[in-house]
Amino acid sequence: MVNLAEKFGAFSEYFAPKIAGDLNDSHIKLGKVKGDFIWHHHENEDELFLVVKGVLRMKIREEGRERELQIRPGELIVIPKGMEHLPSADEETHIMMIEPKTTLNTGNVRNERTKEKLDRV
Amino acid sequence: MVNLAEKFGAFSEYFAPKIAGDLNDSHIKLGKVKGDFIWHHHENEDELFLVVKGVLRMKIREEGRERELQIRPGELIVIPKGMEHLPSADEETHIMMIEPKTTLNTGNVRNERTKEKLDRV
Repeated sequence: MVNLAEKFGAFSEYFAPKIAGDLNDSHIKLGKVKGDFIWHHHENEDELFLVVKGVLRMKIREEGRERELQIRPGELIVIPKGMEHLPSADEETHIMMIEPKTTLNTGNVRNERTKEKLDRV
Repeated sequence: MVNLAEKFGAFSEYFAPKIAGDLNDSHIKLGKVKGDFIWHHHENEDELFLVVKGVLRMKIREEGRERELQIRPGELIVIPKGMEHLPSADEETHIMMIEPKTTLNTGNVRNERTKEKLDRV
């Protein structure tokens, strides 16, 4: 059994998701967000974001237009494969993600923010 | 975007999960639990249960031994494929489930509690 608050208490780094469990071909990941991440998309994977604490500002680009969704505790969003998105938060925000084990945090981009190997929490 | 509380306000039946979204090969399902469900397992699918409200009493059988886990809001459990389990709740309990689209609510059992086709919420 996973107690989310307890797991979030066990790490502090932003934009460094931790693996909290396995679910079929997916990982259950926990992440802390503060500030801006980068624009990216995932070629083959839908991503679920459930907000546990704070406010996730999810910028998305659809048909060349940019907009922002604010996702609060008790709310979730699925970013479908191929959709450009940029997660952001003004204050520390805690999110649970579920995505295929093949998913790289920076999607189609590889740079200094890419985490090739995730720790477990 | 899915607001869980809003979705839970849109249906009332127990043990009749509703589909709230698609995530790769899985469905995001919302369910209300009160009383006992039935013992069953899923041959090929892990199931995630996240409690949103109430207390989920999850009875499981491991190596012939039965025990009960109590899962509260902000806690989740993954029931791995093959594990016998029986969800139960004393008071109305709200759960989010994520499981492959192939998953039948009663798993290896087919009886009057089986829901062959789930509505969307």
